[in-house]
Amino acid sequence: MDIEKKIRELAVQVKTAARVLAAAPTLEKDRALRAMAAGLRNRRGFLQERNRLDLEKARENGLSAAMIDRLTLSDSVIEAMATGLEEVAAFPDPVGEVERMWRRPNQLLVGKMRIPLGVVGMIYESRPNVTADAAGLCLKSGNGVILRGGSEAFHSNMAVLEVLHEALATTSIPVDVVQVVPFTERQAINYLLQCEEEIDLIIPRGGEGLIRFVVEHSRIPVIKHYKGVCHVFVDTGAEIEMARKIVVNAKTHRPGVCNAAETILVHREIAAEFLPLMAADLQAKKVEIRGCAKTLALLPDLMPATDEDWATEYIDLIVSVKVVDGFDEAVAHIARYGSDHTETIVTSDYHRSQEFLRQVNSSVVMVNASTRFSDGGQMGLGAEIGISTTKLHAYGPMGLEGLTTTKYIIYGDGQIRE
Amino acid sequence: MDIEKKIRELAVQVKTAARVLAAAPTLEKDRALRAMAAGLRNRRGFLQERNRLDLEKARENGLSAAMIDRLTLSDSVIEAMATGLEEVAAFPDPVGEVERMWRRPNQLLVGKMRIPLGVVGMIYESRPNVTADAAGLCLKSGNGVILRGGSEAFHSNMAVLEVLHEALATTSIPVDVVQVVPFTERQAINYLLQCEEEIDLIIPRGGEGLIRFVVEHSRIPVIKHYKGVCHVFVDTGAEIEMARKIVVNAKTHRPGVCNAAETILVHREIAAEFLPLMAADLQAKKVEIRGCAKTLALLPDLMPATDEDWATEYIDLIVSVKVVDGFDEAVAHIARYGSDHTETIVTSDYHRSQEFLRQVNSSVVMVNASTRFSDGGQMGLGAEIGISTTKLHAYGPMGLEGLTTTKYIIYGDGQIRE
Repeated sequence: MDIEKKIRELAVQVKTAARVLAAAPTLEKDRALRAMAAGLRNRRGFLQERNRLDLEKARENGLSAAMIDRLTLSDSVIEAMATGLEEVAAFPDPVGEVERMWRRPNQLLVGKMRIPLGVVGMIYESRPNVTADAAGLCLKSGNGVILRGGSEAFHSNMAVLEVLHEALATTSIPVDVVQVVPFTERQAINYLLQCEEEIDLIIPRGGEGLIRFVVEHSRIPVIKHYKGVCHVFVDTGAEIEMARKIVVNAKTHRPGVCNAAETILVHREIAAEFLPLMAADLQAKKVEIRGCAKTLALLPDLMPATDEDWATEYIDLIVSVKVVDGFDEAVAHIARYGSDHTETIVTSDYHRSQEFLRQVNSSVVMVNASTRFSDGGQMGLGAEIGISTTKLHAYGPMGLEGLTTTKYIIYGDGQIRE
Repeated sequence: MDIEKKIRELAVQVKTAARVLAAAPTLEKDRALRAMAAGLRNRRGFLQERNRLDLEKARENGLSAAMIDRLTLSDSVIEAMATGLEEVAAFPDPVGEVERMWRRPNQLLVGKMRIPLGVVGMIYESRPNVTADAAGLCLKSGNGVILRGGSEAFHSNMAVLEVLHEALATTSIPVDVVQVVPFTERQAINYLLQCEEEIDLIIPRGGEGLIRFVVEHSRIPVIKHYKGVCHVFVDTGAEIEMARKIVVNAKTHRPGVCNAAETILVHREIAAEFLPLMAADLQAKKVEIRGCAKTLALLPDLMPATDEDWATEYIDLIVSVKVVDGFDEAVAHIARYGSDHTETIVTSDYHRSQEFLRQVNSSVVMVNASTRFSDGGQMGLGAEIGISTTKLHAYGPMGLEGLTTTKYIIYGDGQIRE
């Protein structure tokens, strides 16, 4: 009961501070971001001292080496946090941008102006660097942010917050624009998700379990993607060398992330030539291949794919392969099994490149490029705060612009309605 | 249980048809819209015959003359429905529009392309013309629509649907892109609001009670506004004649709608000159005025306004008036009591016009124009399907563009991530 009340109070503080931030000049926001970056560098010793408390507990609790690695505030992680904030300071400010204006027959001048959403709630796991990254993006876009990191990073997150607050205190921006929920209880998430009067948007980052929990319990709109079952379709007539490079990159460049490819669709006219080369490439990278019946007819040593495989995000060095009769079957397969994340066609045919972009309505659709480019930074959106595979508000990687909305502005000179 | 199952089946039918519609060429959609318009005109006798069933029942149930008027499919209402569909056919198609494209350092060409949302659920009261209007806007924007009108208009809505289906059957667009829930039970709304796999967006139109019911019971995102407490702020130095005309128009042009003004804020330096003129204008239009203490000091015969008045949408010939010490108090009053709908400043001062547009974050903010222009048609968005006072996805009047989202498209020539 005490926790609930304190979280509500914290949310009200953030909302109040966010109103001031919403009207803050870009120069002052950028100054604050650079002060935050300098603070992280200057207080590295303090951050690492507090980080050690989390690391000790993690070792006591027997966390995996990978988990401990993600939790560690090494010199390079702290430097990357600082650099990230400086990069955000260098981005153009979306707030106040007027997208376009048009003149009405009665001379009214109507336009759309970008404004912040208000307050963002971030719920995430492990990595304490998210605390600084999310604070930076929200600050630049004029939003207050209330952060709830994983309990295993509690001391690290509170230390990062302390340093950010020290920096903000030297500016005209209220320190309360960034807050961390100071409770490790799971119940704290539930209370946060009830603050619908104070928080405008929830962004969960983590495994599918965390995201489903958040969606289930939130009264506040949630920006989310559950999984990324991304496809590469190798069309007949595709350049074989290009297709090989794209498939290998999409699958193996970083198999544990959501924009890695999970299924390769291959046009039957190119299958006999392409599949053996692709299989050799992937096997050299230790990828397990699961094929459809037609794939197995060409490569009998592979594992067979089941219907379940087509809908699976492996997040691992595993890939499913299906030979399709043509373009239409590829598009239908993606519509049925895809997750609206990212799909790419490798083709040399002008018409099918255009049809693929038109007919596939996943959030990112590509021609002749690796699915790994489905990323806010790579696509030039500035940093990325999340990715959405639902169509309302934002669809695809979400950067600074996704943290804003538009209001209509109208310039008149005395018009009334007749 | 039977109703639940049938509504789910209907939603699945609409979703399946919507996939075909999403890829339909603009020419074919426009042809369908014109066929629908012609159908409404040709089948006027049939529509009015069915409409009489609703009207007879309405009279038996003692509905008010105003309600019966809204329910009537007169010749002019049917002609307006047909004309409305033809106007929508003439609008540019938002689907497929690429907003802008940019080149990345590695030569990838990245852009945003507009696509339909999928399936829209409309829940509304009385007016059977909404059935055709909503069908037209959804069809043009490539969305399926499932409609649930008021039970008092049941026969009229089913007749409009029948005519629209006859028209669609002459085109390549599946008739199921438009459906009406054929149940008058209130429970049917609940079932509709559970179809989260089939419906992407719910738009309720009606009184605050209906909207709150929908929000409370929906698992699907809802585009909504509860009320419109719109403000006119008359600044010091405003042109007196312009301010008088704008206040009278904003309050009395159509007092029963959400963009009518409810509160007039008057700068204290202009109050003594302006208030008596404004009060006389409004009283000539039979408007009841409720004033703050400073207003009453100038005009002692008025009713006093209570704190409750500042937050009230009268939807009637009543207005509240407050004298403010200056610009900041006006903006603070709007932030505290406003409903994020529409506000206007009447001013001759350049700086305050810009500050008002910058500081007030309602969905429509104006300078020197009547709040009555806060309307999709008046603002040039094409027709209006709803209005949103929450910031996610759409904010303000929502036309064809609000019924779409954007996906990212990327043109490459073999790029992989290093």
